[in-house]
Amino acid sequence: MSPPGSGTPRRRPGRPAGGSDAYERIVTAAREVFGAEGYDRASLRAIARAAGVDPSLVHHYFAGKEEVFVAAMDLPFDPRQALPAVVDGPWESVGERLVRFFLGVWADPAGRGPFVALLSAATGSATGAELLRGFVGEVLLPLVVPRVDGPDAELRVQAAAAQLVGLGLLRHVVAVEPLAGATDEDVVALVAPTVQRYLGPQVP
Amino acid sequence: MSPPGSGTPRRRPGRPAGGSDAYERIVTAAREVFGAEGYDRASLRAIARAAGVDPSLVHHYFAGKEEVFVAAMDLPFDPRQALPAVVDGPWESVGERLVRFFLGVWADPAGRGPFVALLSAATGSATGAELLRGFVGEVLLPLVVPRVDGPDAELRVQAAAAQLVGLGLLRHVVAVEPLAGATDEDVVALVAPTVQRYLGPQVP
Repeated sequence: MSPPGSGTPRRRPGRPAGGSDAYERIVTAAREVFGAEGYDRASLRAIARAAGVDPSLVHHYFAGKEEVFVAAMDLPFDPRQALPAVVDGPWESVGERLVRFFLGVWADPAGRGPFVALLSAATGSATGAELLRGFVGEVLLPLVVPRVDGPDAELRVQAAAAQLVGLGLLRHVVAVEPLAGATDEDVVALVAPTVQRYLGPQVP
Repeated sequence: MSPPGSGTPRRRPGRPAGGSDAYERIVTAAREVFGAEGYDRASLRAIARAAGVDPSLVHHYFAGKEEVFVAAMDLPFDPRQALPAVVDGPWESVGERLVRFFLGVWADPAGRGPFVALLSAATGSATGAELLRGFVGEVLLPLVVPRVDGPDAELRVQAAAAQLVGLGLLRHVVAVEPLAGATDEDVVALVAPTVQRYLGPQVP
């Protein structure tokens, strides 16, 4: 699949087609409230209050907190559509598809930017860590874990996520050579078997 | 081996036994200069100047820039002694030893603190990223790479490092469950084969 952000023109997921001042105010307020409160404590009510809008308007634009958070992250793609599309397909190559997708996201500054910002917040404060925990634990992992078989499916998916997060950090943020300059093919050949092994068998 | 910081009382590597005001001033100045300049651009001369001491005094306490940096990081152990001791031993269990050592370091707040601070700096600014690149590329990796066989030894050691850094982040900073609460044994069983596979054959 083509990396996110390669299409034209890019439209943020969830953004209303007509544009709306209230929508922008809600997303801006959401960034502030999530940043100050963390994922669990941030409420749609507090976000509405910070945006100066009626809570019903937040519910008009967003199905729930998860949707507001994804919009606030300003990702060039919606992980709730993109990730299942990557995981679907022959299970024996799911590790390779996940690594390729991840490399595509991180190669694009607009793709890795929100993740690097989250990592910066997470390593800088307890609230930032809680924010990343909410995103990883309540948005990303539930998109993959139900497709993985076995009682330790969550733990194994998290080991795979650890591999990918560390890879993005060392390749694109720390930019250590030769990893930073290696081809995608070389990285896929090295790392895809790891992700595939962690995921193990598919749910029957 | 016992995790760093479990002994009593802890003594920073390189710290002169008698204590010294000048030593402390150099280490404090080194933190500032490394933080402002990054690893490559920071010079012992600039550190001496910032500390208000003669450059010869820096050379009296430290063999070189790498030594000053390790002291400035305030690690409860010296990676240049600890890491070779972990890598030495039967090669078929080197992955397990590395994962156990890493888990021990990160379980101790004094052990993971300097690493989390470096990650925070690296995700927050280009200078911070360069600082972590210097530490990983010029201090840590050279302790392992020469023992690994094959033309892509560096790339494979970096893939292993990515796995371990991501593991520390998700387990101890993001603290996502069940990874955060998993036993060391469960994590070792899951991750050690990955590190072992990346390292591949030992140099003959």
